[in-house]
Amino acid sequence: VWKYINQLKEEGYVIESSSKKGYKLASIPDILNKREVISYIKTEFLGKEIYYFDTIDSTNNYAKKIAEDGCEEGTVVISDCQIAGKGRRGREWASLAGKGIYMSVVLKPLLEPSQMQLITLAASVAVAEALKEQTGMDLGIKWPNDIILDARKLCGILTEMTCETDKINYVILGLGVNVNQDMEDFPADLRDKAVSLKAGCKQLTGENKTFNRAKIIASILLHIEKYYKMLQSGLNEEIIDKWRLHSITLGKQIMCSDSRGSYLCIAEDITEDGHLVVKCEDGSVRELLSGEVSIKGVMGYI
Amino acid sequence: VWKYINQLKEEGYVIESSSKKGYKLASIPDILNKREVISYIKTEFLGKEIYYFDTIDSTNNYAKKIAEDGCEEGTVVISDCQIAGKGRRGREWASLAGKGIYMSVVLKPLLEPSQMQLITLAASVAVAEALKEQTGMDLGIKWPNDIILDARKLCGILTEMTCETDKINYVILGLGVNVNQDMEDFPADLRDKAVSLKAGCKQLTGENKTFNRAKIIASILLHIEKYYKMLQSGLNEEIIDKWRLHSITLGKQIMCSDSRGSYLCIAEDITEDGHLVVKCEDGSVRELLSGEVSIKGVMGYI
Repeated sequence: VWKYINQLKEEGYVIESSSKKGYKLASIPDILNKREVISYIKTEFLGKEIYYFDTIDSTNNYAKKIAEDGCEEGTVVISDCQIAGKGRRGREWASLAGKGIYMSVVLKPLLEPSQMQLITLAASVAVAEALKEQTGMDLGIKWPNDIILDARKLCGILTEMTCETDKINYVILGLGVNVNQDMEDFPADLRDKAVSLKAGCKQLTGENKTFNRAKIIASILLHIEKYYKMLQSGLNEEIIDKWRLHSITLGKQIMCSDSRGSYLCIAEDITEDGHLVVKCEDGSVRELLSGEVSIKGVMGYI
Repeated sequence: VWKYINQLKEEGYVIESSSKKGYKLASIPDILNKREVISYIKTEFLGKEIYYFDTIDSTNNYAKKIAEDGCEEGTVVISDCQIAGKGRRGREWASLAGKGIYMSVVLKPLLEPSQMQLITLAASVAVAEALKEQTGMDLGIKWPNDIILDARKLCGILTEMTCETDKINYVILGLGVNVNQDMEDFPADLRDKAVSLKAGCKQLTGENKTFNRAKIIASILLHIEKYYKMLQSGLNEEIIDKWRLHSITLGKQIMCSDSRGSYLCIAEDITEDGHLVVKCEDGSVRELLSGEVSIKGVMGYI
């Protein structure tokens, strides 16, 4: 027994031993490893194959490599830390060791490439529901797929697709979730834009709480699997309705930046293929698929 | 001098030498190597970087790898032979050594992912014009992008894209052109569906002719560069007009196979985003982006 106990201790578990009573796990720590994640997983096919790393350049890059080599659909790449984490449009994503969730999922949907936006929206609904379920906190989705807590970014999703004109080869769904960072863990220029579950919980409730990342990962995978199945069954309208429910964008004044420059408008609705319908100040109505959107809130635009 | 002469002879050039007159290149052979290709290239940026292989699994796969590693736009991968050449939708592409052109081009267009079809159509126009210019033969484009000679396939284009929702990371334009194959070089089951420039020329004109692949590659790259620049300048309608000009699909009875099954219709037009407009037997009009299309010709459906 002591060999395994020592191994667990090395991985960071706190185990009390007594010569009479045997061993006792003092508390469930936030340890991220493959075994811990697997112990919580309840999915059918998502995460049946997991690649786990202590450090990696970017989980999306690794997922792309194994997808090119023909890995199974549902394969998941997790790393405790990323040294070159990626956000949308080539931006960096701060990926501190021991604090966040950095995970990529390989999907091979039988959908048209034009339905990529729906995959992204479905993923944002899945992550929002998983995080609400795990934390009870009041999260929202900013169009298209950022998860927002207390007007700051809690989770970003980077969807990358490789396709032919009429056939998706694979989709990499990359997630970065800020979990146990304290505010001082974030780079100074991100402190008014980023938040973690721990920091948000402390600021909103005063409670000092650490969250179990392996448990959260398992819940996210379960919810992604559920919405992915709905998508494959053509239940697009149901997914869009769920997205509307969690949206913090709809009904708000937003600032759009696209090839036409920056302009103010009201976010009116989202179409069944995931375009944002906005009404401009001159009364004209536009559908946005791309471009940046900021929402006017009490703290200014987020 | 003799050292270089011997090197050229080793590469396959036929050089006559005379002790009085020096050396004479007996004829310009069809030799494919990087130097030969470069000697014909007249482009601004396409093919400024060339990776040449005698044998490779698939030029598209190699191009994807170097694109992931951040290669320059316009980088070209050429191989004399492919051992796992790919066609659309995972099909094989016969890639015999010394006979065809197997080439992939890395592009990074500032276009929306939804414009991928236009890239494919522009490439088919470019290749059709290059091959007409180099051979004088009567080629046509079958929707979306096969080049057809004498009712058989002369060239296939496999476009693969990696993108985010609103940003193309890169596009790999893969070309397979049958050049100097004799009919017996094709697998038996392809002989009524495939043709090469050489075999087509012999059957149509009786002439026994070998074509210079390096020269054809240079011409294809020049034409692709021209149409790619037009695309980047937003001259979509001009490209679609050129496609209409070369089309052998428009106006014909075609057999469509898609998720609704197989049905007969007339190919009426192509939209400005590259969808095929077809009129079904019941009078209904549909727009196709995907699915297979066969054209009714004198030889049956091709």
